[in-house]
Amino acid sequence: MSEDEIEAAAGASVDPDARHAEKMRKKKAVRDKILATKTVEKGLIIVHTGKGKGKSTAAFGMVFRSLGYGLPVAVIQFVKGAWETGERFALERFGDLVSINAMGEGFTWETQDRQRDIAAARRAFETAKDLIRAGEHHLVLLDELNIVLRYDYLPLQEVLNFLTTEKPPHVHVVITGRNAPDGLIEIADLVTEMEMIKHPFRSGVKAQKGIEF
Amino acid sequence: MSEDEIEAAAGASVDPDARHAEKMRKKKAVRDKILATKTVEKGLIIVHTGKGKGKSTAAFGMVFRSLGYGLPVAVIQFVKGAWETGERFALERFGDLVSINAMGEGFTWETQDRQRDIAAARRAFETAKDLIRAGEHHLVLLDELNIVLRYDYLPLQEVLNFLTTEKPPHVHVVITGRNAPDGLIEIADLVTEMEMIKHPFRSGVKAQKGIEF
Repeated sequence: MSEDEIEAAAGASVDPDARHAEKMRKKKAVRDKILATKTVEKGLIIVHTGKGKGKSTAAFGMVFRSLGYGLPVAVIQFVKGAWETGERFALERFGDLVSINAMGEGFTWETQDRQRDIAAARRAFETAKDLIRAGEHHLVLLDELNIVLRYDYLPLQEVLNFLTTEKPPHVHVVITGRNAPDGLIEIADLVTEMEMIKHPFRSGVKAQKGIEF
Repeated sequence: MSEDEIEAAAGASVDPDARHAEKMRKKKAVRDKILATKTVEKGLIIVHTGKGKGKSTAAFGMVFRSLGYGLPVAVIQFVKGAWETGERFALERFGDLVSINAMGEGFTWETQDRQRDIAAARRAFETAKDLIRAGEHHLVLLDELNIVLRYDYLPLQEVLNFLTTEKPPHVHVVITGRNAPDGLIEIADLVTEMEMIKHPFRSGVKAQKGIEF
């Protein structure tokens, strides 16, 4: 038999559209089978880390997605300046559905005062604990918590213990910032690393409204 | 001289807080110097790619950031199902500021009809071109365009030509989807790869409202 005859005998089509349809049918079957095994619902510990853009921005995308459903959200900002303006104005449209808590005193390289930063981190974490324990929010965003952990402004073990033992099962927690500690990655359910492939800073482009802030 | 004397002579402090303050002062000085060289403002071509989560979500974060400033945004959805519900409800809060164009016919592995997908991709791209050329939106999101390019539903070169020669200089364009083609990465200003480090699917957790969709 020729190759064509073999193909015809096997019922395979040489028409690219039909071949595509067959390939897609198979993909869909595999995907449906996988999805059927996913039945657990639980509040996730989600980490966005890496040197690239989009860690806080993707977290804010999740915040707006939850708000879109009318699900309440709390944001605790551990470092000032990471988001301030665009997001805040947009969040304010959702009124009581969202609790915004800007606890940071400024970027660590702006304040230059370690004791003040440690005190601010502590206040922010106590607020975060109260909000998470209360269980009233579908999603709690701990924005730039990784920065605070990186500088040892909060004991990592205390944060991990809280998340693993005191977070109500239905509450989703999203933690952002570079250099997520290994211990946090270990207890997390979903970890994404944002990697910088190309950045316009290299061509002298400055941070722009609605894009970077 | 002893080491301590050398340090004292150099004006360096051994107090950890003072040392921290000095380190941060230096960091800030470097940062300020770099920022001063960034003076260009222009509409960027931004690409979110990679296998991890957060590509469309971070793009939506940017959309809401722009909307927060009252800047108009257009969204063209090349693949149906990538976002539908949470984001759409949230976008609707911003009324006329946002133009939503759901052009995809369904995930490619749902439709299994290549010709219909090609026609849908073409309609979506024509809409995208009109919206970008008009220059009325601060940001135009071409959601999941990379998927369409991956399947050769649109000629890559045509898309690249349009972006490099017809996009008005002030318009930001964000393109999302896995497998961004090399040619697109080449013409882009800002490229971030979302890498999956850990995913809850592996522990049988299903997609959840406000988190995945």
